[in-house]
Amino acid sequence: MFGCLVAGRLVQTDMQQVDLTHFVFNIENADAVNHIVVFLTGTMPFPEGMGGAIHFSWPSPEGVAWQFLGYITNEKPSAIFKISGLKKGNISANNPFMQATQPGQQMNTVSQIGIAVEPTAQIAQQIPAKNTQTSNVSNFTEFTTKMLENFYNFASSFGITQAQMTPQPDVSWVPLTVLDKWYETFKRKMSQDVNFWKS
Amino acid sequence: MFGCLVAGRLVQTDMQQVDLTHFVFNIENADAVNHIVVFLTGTMPFPEGMGGAIHFSWPSPEGVAWQFLGYITNEKPSAIFKISGLKKGNISANNPFMQATQPGQQMNTVSQIGIAVEPTAQIAQQIPAKNTQTSNVSNFTEFTTKMLENFYNFASSFGITQAQMTPQPDVSWVPLTVLDKWYETFKRKMSQDVNFWKS
Repeated sequence: MFGCLVAGRLVQTDMQQVDLTHFVFNIENADAVNHIVVFLTGTMPFPEGMGGAIHFSWPSPEGVAWQFLGYITNEKPSAIFKISGLKKGNISANNPFMQATQPGQQMNTVSQIGIAVEPTAQIAQQIPAKNTQTSNVSNFTEFTTKMLENFYNFASSFGITQAQMTPQPDVSWVPLTVLDKWYETFKRKMSQDVNFWKS
Repeated sequence: MFGCLVAGRLVQTDMQQVDLTHFVFNIENADAVNHIVVFLTGTMPFPEGMGGAIHFSWPSPEGVAWQFLGYITNEKPSAIFKISGLKKGNISANNPFMQATQPGQQMNTVSQIGIAVEPTAQIAQQIPAKNTQTSNVSNFTEFTTKMLENFYNFASSFGITQAQMTPQPDVSWVPLTVLDKWYETFKRKMSQDVNFWKS
């Protein structure tokens, strides 16, 4: 029913059924993994009103740490997740996979993709872990905004008026307002073509 | 032998064999497509020394425009490509799929993924179209570098020494060297944690 593909590796259909509504794929050497694709093979759809919540786990000495990545449904039967940005060791006791794991069960030493078949309404309330969505415009825009804020704050702390300057004949000075001008132009260009900066 | 998956859609195994070494998948409504995954299903490997060069085509009034995306091999049996950044209308006469298309053949009105089975040495000489690789550290680093270069050039053009300043009591001035300082710190932080900027 489900397929799992780590970019660069062979596609996996070796899922294991943990219980009635929970399935897992083992992911070897997950530290080297960047993107994972999870998809319906097409052999069997979800029951009506149900979808698959996708989780990822890092093994850790304290136990298995599951994180919610996103979902697939009959209407959206495949999705790509970026796991290279996932932090390790955030054990979430409320995670359905934590509850499905039997106490005293052998700790996993390998990472896993977990698929929980649940009502879509329930899935809609879950929030994906940070840094798991594939890149898009808003990532670059968010990155630029944060970086420029950071730079603006840093540069402002060095900003002085002419009255405060000591003689420094070799120093080139720039008005702080130049940053605002540049940022306005940048925003305009991004709204016209998000890839303008590559040329 | 090959599978093709558009993120968000059902996986496709409906490839058509154009000739002995060329295969295509039709991609409907490609304008709405962000990422495409191309992979070996595992039923049959490539012959030794051979791999699959992956191309993408936009239909256009002048004919089909093919662009090289990348490749898969037995050692790297899957890959994800971002096609949302591909420009349309770059007809490349040297593209193997152009040569495989019969003169006078019905123009395609749908986009296609093309797989050309070729010696890996030949594939290694092809250069992927811009903006087709999934995001990773180097994308952000490249983006930052280009943006900061652009900003540095812009800011420098406003840089003047004290000797050149007219009285402007309300203006805050920043030494141009402040940008260098900030950029050094930024590079160091990125090398320690590529996602530091998100927090």
